[in-house]
Amino acid sequence: MNATPVKTGATTAAENDAFIAAVAEELNDFLADKHQLLAQISPATLVLVDSIKTLVTGGKRMRALLCYWGWRGAGGAPDAKSVIQAGAALELFQAAALIHDDIIDRSDTRRGGPSVHRQFSTLHTGSGWALDDERFGHAAAILTGDLCLSLSEEMFSRIASGPIGSAAAERARAVFNVMRTEVMAGQYLDILEEVAGPSKPHETAVARASAIIRYKSAKYSSEHPLVLGGALAGADETLLAGYSAFALPLGEAFQLRDDVLGVFGDPAQTGKPAGDDLREGKRTVLVGLTIDAAAAADREFVDKNLGRQDLSEDQVARLCSIMVESGALASTEAMISELSQTAFAALALLPIDPTVAAALSGLGLGAVTRTS
Amino acid sequence: MNATPVKTGATTAAENDAFIAAVAEELNDFLADKHQLLAQISPATLVLVDSIKTLVTGGKRMRALLCYWGWRGAGGAPDAKSVIQAGAALELFQAAALIHDDIIDRSDTRRGGPSVHRQFSTLHTGSGWALDDERFGHAAAILTGDLCLSLSEEMFSRIASGPIGSAAAERARAVFNVMRTEVMAGQYLDILEEVAGPSKPHETAVARASAIIRYKSAKYSSEHPLVLGGALAGADETLLAGYSAFALPLGEAFQLRDDVLGVFGDPAQTGKPAGDDLREGKRTVLVGLTIDAAAAADREFVDKNLGRQDLSEDQVARLCSIMVESGALASTEAMISELSQTAFAALALLPIDPTVAAALSGLGLGAVTRTS
Repeated sequence: MNATPVKTGATTAAENDAFIAAVAEELNDFLADKHQLLAQISPATLVLVDSIKTLVTGGKRMRALLCYWGWRGAGGAPDAKSVIQAGAALELFQAAALIHDDIIDRSDTRRGGPSVHRQFSTLHTGSGWALDDERFGHAAAILTGDLCLSLSEEMFSRIASGPIGSAAAERARAVFNVMRTEVMAGQYLDILEEVAGPSKPHETAVARASAIIRYKSAKYSSEHPLVLGGALAGADETLLAGYSAFALPLGEAFQLRDDVLGVFGDPAQTGKPAGDDLREGKRTVLVGLTIDAAAAADREFVDKNLGRQDLSEDQVARLCSIMVESGALASTEAMISELSQTAFAALALLPIDPTVAAALSGLGLGAVTRTS
Repeated sequence: MNATPVKTGATTAAENDAFIAAVAEELNDFLADKHQLLAQISPATLVLVDSIKTLVTGGKRMRALLCYWGWRGAGGAPDAKSVIQAGAALELFQAAALIHDDIIDRSDTRRGGPSVHRQFSTLHTGSGWALDDERFGHAAAILTGDLCLSLSEEMFSRIASGPIGSAAAERARAVFNVMRTEVMAGQYLDILEEVAGPSKPHETAVARASAIIRYKSAKYSSEHPLVLGGALAGADETLLAGYSAFALPLGEAFQLRDDVLGVFGDPAQTGKPAGDDLREGKRTVLVGLTIDAAAAADREFVDKNLGRQDLSEDQVARLCSIMVESGALASTEAMISELSQTAFAALALLPIDPTVAAALSGLGLGAVTRTS
């Protein structure tokens, strides 16, 4: 048992790297084709594909990797084109979601750089164009996100004309379809909670926030990518159910970690300014626990100030300290721990190759213990 | 020759009606499934699919009909599932485009009713929710449009698992893919021209506006749907090129008619308030011709006032009269006439059944002579 983990770890890392490189190359070639098509329409439109390219070049590629290991766990070969295309489609979908999310959340930064709508408003200002720069930025980013969403679908549709059997392709397509509908419904519940949450009973805030992260995040970012990879490789429903039992609680833990980092993370590591999530008014599980556990005066302060764009540093600090003192932060960490244990218990039961188990374990640990 | 047109007309109308009904039924069943999926997530999300349903229930279904007759002209059977699915996918794509267009254009009405972002902001106000109603409306409509775009793709992908041969399915898929990229690039050129146009030479305004309508509208609304239908039925490239020779100028004429109606149309018939296009600042061919032909003082008035949200009725009236007096309106009508003649000359050369030719002729005439 002594040598195995090291060897497995090295194998896993090499496979992760090889797959990430293959997805990057697939995206590169694909976007180069689109660059050519847009150049024929007008050089002025190249900025659309360039901003998409920047976005898919970065990121952790967690969804693509889960898809890959779901595929490998069901017996798929390491360098198959179909799973590379699926990974590339997931990355493009995520890029589209980020572009529109940043408009919705009014986030000016993404991974330390300007968000897409901010790139366009800066282009407007710098060019001395007429009318409103913000409005132009939003409009251009809506269109860029739409293009990116279409490109994600175009990439995914290539799988069906590849060597994958039609039953596996259709099962994977069904996962991809449900994933998209669920994440958009989940995002709607998220923005709805921001506005409708304050008028609902504080006792149910945690339950509402939990439902949101399930659809907006856990299923989308974790369960569906893993199941998608398995389905592509023709996994039976028992294995797919086992994948869900691992990846759903893992995805919930991942999102809870994200929520904690959104408030308590180091801006230098997360690439997001401190207090952004609070100014945006996200009604996370952390916020739900705070509202439910805080003293009445503190709860009133939270309800009144969460989502105010003009929050001062002092107000941000007070919100943070309410989250700590109410015990909400500790409760969230306890939830992360419990969900992680559930996930890893399910992982141990999966009938998969040790290399795959080690890879999924590595991805899982990274997701719940990360600092950025 | 005497009896034939009447008989053909009756046949055409019956086929149009039957196809429209089949597309409506396909959309109905499909959206009922999505309704069920969303109900399981949360009843609060049903408003997303309901607003999509309202949007795909109305409209002229011109794109779906062009697709149908492109299919029929290439020998496709009248009631085949594949072309019904293609028509439904085109309708869903158009609905998605309208939802996001209305956000971009800040249009509060669509087909006489409230636009989707306005429906959501009204829901916010009526429910007494917290934070900003406009912002919620825009965010919810971005998500609804994204969902609708995904549903369009989901519908289109069903074709590949139907009875259509894989070569035809792939050819049709290629048209669908190019269509989406081109229309988004064209829409970007459109919003770019609104802001960058005024600082460019007025002598090239017409050429720029012509390029925009080609990609944003003529290819998307006319050429691609017709070619898509033909490709689905396995048409050879000669027939597809003939379809393009008819449908591209037709689509350009259609968009020029749209631009004229946007300024001079009867609001009771178009469902859009008078002056909306002028307040939005659309740099159409009509505007390009006006800027190029108007006297210097009038040109300055146009450049200064086009796109101002607060245009008074008097200012709208002056813009209209500049368009008339400069001869720009008459020139636009002349272009519509010339493009229509080019389109109908190409139609006469198509090697298609007289029923199909009559149907395309009817759609073409309707597109260029419509009043709403």
